[in-house]
Amino acid sequence: MNLPGPIITLTTDFGGDDGYVGAVKGVILSICSPANIIDCAHQIDPQNIVQAAMALEAAALYYPPATIHLAVVDPGVGTNRRRLAALTERQIFVGPDNGVFGLVFRRESPQRIFSIENEKYLLTGRSTTFDGRDIFAPAAAHLANGLDPAELGPQIDNPVALPWPENTLDDQEITGAIVATDRFGNLITSIHRDEIDDNVPAFTVHVGNRKIPGPAVSYAEGPSAAGGYRALFGSAGYLEIALPGDSAATHILAGWGDVVSVVW
Amino acid sequence: MNLPGPIITLTTDFGGDDGYVGAVKGVILSICSPANIIDCAHQIDPQNIVQAAMALEAAALYYPPATIHLAVVDPGVGTNRRRLAALTERQIFVGPDNGVFGLVFRRESPQRIFSIENEKYLLTGRSTTFDGRDIFAPAAAHLANGLDPAELGPQIDNPVALPWPENTLDDQEITGAIVATDRFGNLITSIHRDEIDDNVPAFTVHVGNRKIPGPAVSYAEGPSAAGGYRALFGSAGYLEIALPGDSAATHILAGWGDVVSVVW
Amino acid sequence: MNLPGPIITLTTDFGGDDGYVGAVKGVILSICSPANIIDCAHQIDPQNIVQAAMALEAAALYYPPATIHLAVVDPGVGTNRRRLAALTERQIFVGPDNGVFGLVFRRESPQRIFSIENEKYLLTGRSTTFDGRDIFAPAAAHLANGLDPAELGPQIDNPVALPWPENTLDDQEITGAIVATDRFGNLITSIHRDEIDDNVPAFTVHVGNRKIPGPAVSYAEGPSAAGGYRALFGSAGYLEIALPGDSAATHILAGWGDVVSVVW
Repeated sequence: MNLPGPIITLTTDFGGDDGYVGAVKGVILSICSPANIIDCAHQIDPQNIVQAAMALEAAALYYPPATIHLAVVDPGVGTNRRRLAALTERQIFVGPDNGVFGLVFRRESPQRIFSIENEKYLLTGRSTTFDGRDIFAPAAAHLANGLDPAELGPQIDNPVALPWPENTLDDQEITGAIVATDRFGNLITSIHRDEIDDNVPAFTVHVGNRKIPGPAVSYAEGPSAAGGYRALFGSAGYLEIALPGDSAATHILAGWGDVVSVVW
Repeated sequence: MNLPGPIITLTTDFGGDDGYVGAVKGVILSICSPANIIDCAHQIDPQNIVQAAMALEAAALYYPPATIHLAVVDPGVGTNRRRLAALTERQIFVGPDNGVFGLVFRRESPQRIFSIENEKYLLTGRSTTFDGRDIFAPAAAHLANGLDPAELGPQIDNPVALPWPENTLDDQEITGAIVATDRFGNLITSIHRDEIDDNVPAFTVHVGNRKIPGPAVSYAEGPSAAGGYRALFGSAGYLEIALPGDSAATHILAGWGDVVSVVW
Repeated sequence: MNLPGPIITLTTDFGGDDGYVGAVKGVILSICSPANIIDCAHQIDPQNIVQAAMALEAAALYYPPATIHLAVVDPGVGTNRRRLAALTERQIFVGPDNGVFGLVFRRESPQRIFSIENEKYLLTGRSTTFDGRDIFAPAAAHLANGLDPAELGPQIDNPVALPWPENTLDDQEITGAIVATDRFGNLITSIHRDEIDDNVPAFTVHVGNRKIPGPAVSYAEGPSAAGGYRALFGSAGYLEIALPGDSAATHILAGWGDVVSVVW
């Protein structure tokens, strides 16, 4: 079997009705022709950094060592916000310095972070509106070719933090917030399985004026509230509220930042 | 030229705004790095098994021998529904036992079906909500590496059937139902070209209170009804109602399960 | 490192909820197994040739030499419209003869164009509704295998033109039209940076009854109008109207064909 090419994953808010995704891939393949480009997510809501951060956290660590993750959700394009190439113990992350790597860095700390500045590795004649194509894609492709990341620019150590609710913990309670709604209408919260002691066998989730017992074993099994609502830990570890066979989000009028508490 | 890697296609209802697709691909590449991962469809309506079954029927048989088709549209995740690895004469199908392979199996019969149960080939520390990542992806990747499918678990022989309208045939009539609406607004029916004798030169399609002559040669040529409606056999062989340059679905108020009959 | 396979990009209006994309890829891989299939855009609005043309213009020229770009946005499928394989100096374009390559050909002229007709290189038993699978995919895959394009059919020299507004230039004014709205709500116009003299330091954009000063440096920097509107040249060179942090398209009631003029 052949040696596979270096993996570069893409997480963007470009959607699929114009040439943005195609241009990024073209730049990568022009610099690193054996690159194995993997579409991770392109339907991130426009400029929704939190959603992109959650997608990266859910996906990135399942990849082989040396994978390069390119993320372009970039409301600050054209400003002087920095552009990052960050190395964790196993992988490389390339994208704007706006917190998009905030969650994945909690799972795998960055060991060295560089500010991408060296014109030698960027596209010439570049625009002020599309750093994904002009800066991040070439940087990722050169790294895939084996470039020493230190060649890209100076090392930095204070990446911008992700806007993310701070959970508060008490003896018998943890309070957080809703951070996302997934495609199936499940409400995802900021409360992670790791924050609740394994010895807690059961709890009650308070959201709006509803009280939902938990944790359920799965969408189909375990305790549920009137109406069929279930509270369970999703595949990335975050507590979520589901309404199996229906959409919890269309019945519970709650969204980003609304308070959720877990009491036991 | 190099030997290409084993092909694994993905058909899911994950969409593109979170990390589900990315996680599945990461797991595959971590187990089988040369895999050639091909996105078939990720915008299947949430938990719409019929739609996924039709996508697989339309696409799978065009792939080379030994292709592995991974399908994850899985409302029963976390229950005790079985997980399948099925071998037809030419290809391999991996996914939940819920009928998602029901249509493609009518074109190419499964010769052996295995229930995926062997923990050795599944992800450790797995969730109860994401078998796509934890069970189906590793199983597919191990098969791509050449694993004997019998290693995955016991052989079974009664896969769950797809919910699908039973067409009724008479001497001069066949009655079926609408099973889908495609992106162009064409109404797709359960009536397949193979069910109508080649000697029938012309027929009338009854849908709601409309009567549409057919078959048309194409969206642009052949008999049409008042308003421009055409009845023709689509690229997968199913009879469909089209309104060229417009959307039939927005004018004919009909959907899943509504009766369609063809009379000649 | 291995020799990478030939690149075939896909730009279609197929979306992702059926088997169309999957079938096209299967046909390609069955004919040219080492092909590196790259998804460029599949969410083009149904039958929107202009949108596909703009996506191709924005993406294609960033790819390496010998890349094959396959475009299937094809309202005329099943009619006698021609099917093209066009060679520019660096790349190959395969798709319907409906103007979809009209913009990219202004950047890189076609040197030879062939009408795809040779049954030997097309799918047998083909449909009248899916040339993407039956004609364009096999043609592209054979070209990727090294087929001489002249084998596909006779050379032609008058491809169909894209429907596209003709800009009018005066001494101190250029008038064009809105041609698209992107995912971020930016209004894209037909007026290209190349049409305005580099010596013009500042201008006013007239759209509806608004007057917006320009050009802005980026979405975040440079002159703006009341309300925050900015006029700038986007990453493909076209003048666009943006409302940073919001959607210009939801506030300015303007769309395809509406007049825009730039005065200096």
